[in-house]
Amino acid sequence: MFKKISIIGCGLIGSSLLRIINRKKLAKKIEVYDKSLSVQKFLKKKKLIKKINNDIGKVVENSDLVIISTPLSAYNDVLSKIKKFIKNNSILTDTGSAKENINKTVLNLNFNEKKINWIASHPIAGTEMSGPESGTEKLFNKRWCILCPSAHCKKKSLFKLENFWKKIGSKVKVMDFNEHDKILALSSHLPHVIAYNIVKTAVMREGKINKDIIKYSAGGLRDFTRIASSDPIMWRDIFIENSKNIIKVIDEFIKNLEDLKKNISENDIIKLEELFKNSKKIRSEIVSSGQDTSEPDFGRKKN
Amino acid sequence: MFKKISIIGCGLIGSSLLRIINRKKLAKKIEVYDKSLSVQKFLKKKKLIKKINNDIGKVVENSDLVIISTPLSAYNDVLSKIKKFIKNNSILTDTGSAKENINKTVLNLNFNEKKINWIASHPIAGTEMSGPESGTEKLFNKRWCILCPSAHCKKKSLFKLENFWKKIGSKVKVMDFNEHDKILALSSHLPHVIAYNIVKTAVMREGKINKDIIKYSAGGLRDFTRIASSDPIMWRDIFIENSKNIIKVIDEFIKNLEDLKKNISENDIIKLEELFKNSKKIRSEIVSSGQDTSEPDFGRKKN
Repeated sequence: MFKKISIIGCGLIGSSLLRIINRKKLAKKIEVYDKSLSVQKFLKKKKLIKKINNDIGKVVENSDLVIISTPLSAYNDVLSKIKKFIKNNSILTDTGSAKENINKTVLNLNFNEKKINWIASHPIAGTEMSGPESGTEKLFNKRWCILCPSAHCKKKSLFKLENFWKKIGSKVKVMDFNEHDKILALSSHLPHVIAYNIVKTAVMREGKINKDIIKYSAGGLRDFTRIASSDPIMWRDIFIENSKNIIKVIDEFIKNLEDLKKNISENDIIKLEELFKNSKKIRSEIVSSGQDTSEPDFGRKKN
Repeated sequence: MFKKISIIGCGLIGSSLLRIINRKKLAKKIEVYDKSLSVQKFLKKKKLIKKINNDIGKVVENSDLVIISTPLSAYNDVLSKIKKFIKNNSILTDTGSAKENINKTVLNLNFNEKKINWIASHPIAGTEMSGPESGTEKLFNKRWCILCPSAHCKKKSLFKLENFWKKIGSKVKVMDFNEHDKILALSSHLPHVIAYNIVKTAVMREGKINKDIIKYSAGGLRDFTRIASSDPIMWRDIFIENSKNIIKVIDEFIKNLEDLKKNISENDIIKLEELFKNSKKIRSEIVSSGQDTSEPDFGRKKN
């Protein structure tokens, strides 16, 4: 499908792509770059790749598809370094969770003068674990991948990248950079902000971990701590890169929470029931859209 | 162990208790009361009980242990009705998630004049499903059950009830009514308040369900919708019964969220990383305390 693919950054997402590209033979040649020696060692040990070049220019050279899978905060550096070596007319993509600012970075570096087809990708897939040892071929299976094509990219290239993600196992949706960031602020970034905040509020009491709270935590808090244990660097970068939209939805969240507090303090049974019934309806939509199962969750325990 | 146990209210918790008491033969005789005809029908169909008496007085009569497993809002009515029939010196318990107000209700009804050993129980177990069809013998296995003994209860009775819960499969912790409500406000009630609020904020946009948010929801939001689909009546009652503590922790949550918003808007990388690192530490505590596994969660999908 592609003559050469290069992957810059080989953590959970990059190494999962590497695994599937290898097995499905989606490229004649594949090269990866990762500055971490332990990542390099792991990839070689697991025979995911034979040789790793420490010269990022050589890695991207002659690639038809370059995929950036580093944390968002490394993009500027990576993009600046590869620009000289990236092949004219090739496709440049990434796997990051925020798009609008990154698009500006690419535009500022003027990749267009090499007629690069810049199309941002966001595979909505992942776990709370990070690093290549957590990667798996199944990661993207039946998950959505959102593509945001830049103004100058060729239709043919967009079609080629769409096809690539479908072969990876994803369902593809094309939308613009702004729209992506607005939707993800609600569907993914706000839930993570809240998970971090609840873990802080509930478990850290006066700077110390309150072990009783952990001990007697029911399903809810357990799930929040799992969400809040996701990769710190990744989430720090997302919060910074999509801050405009995230701050807006935090304000809406606080407004709603003040209303709910009022309902509780006024014993407003009618309003509370209305909220609960709407939540149950939304849950049915999530289950019927295939995003989760309807199986009850008893909590997971060590054996 | 007990000559006669009666269970008032046979939903998820009551029917799960019925199943284990039956199988482990923890009582010579067991009677249940549930005003719902569909619940009665289900219990008989599944042969969980042969006969159901619609006279609540007859059900509790001669019981050594009476367990109330109705929603909290039904307690006053149930307690008033059973008081005349409950056996002197017997043990009265419940399975509710808020304790301080309920204790006042029991004190006001003066169960003490019949020397009733009132000991509140809170098995911290459950799923987001409700009703007897979701009940299971395994529900309480290795989960904590908190017991709050009233001032007048006999040591022997507390010991007997502790033993009962241990045979059910639970680990037992004794604490007072106030302490229970303070801890649970943080470990369970706040997470549910927040889950309801995030589902409202993220998914209900201008009174309508935003299907795009559901479609592109990642792990976080899926988990919140599951938590927010728990039994509406149960949660309405908990919010009302523990409102004093819940309002206090909502205020702390909002204060922390305002701080976090400030860190995001000021690009305060140091503060954000500190928060993330603390969250990861807390997660390790949850996993090492055996409250969850360290297995990654890829999200659950319909096949």
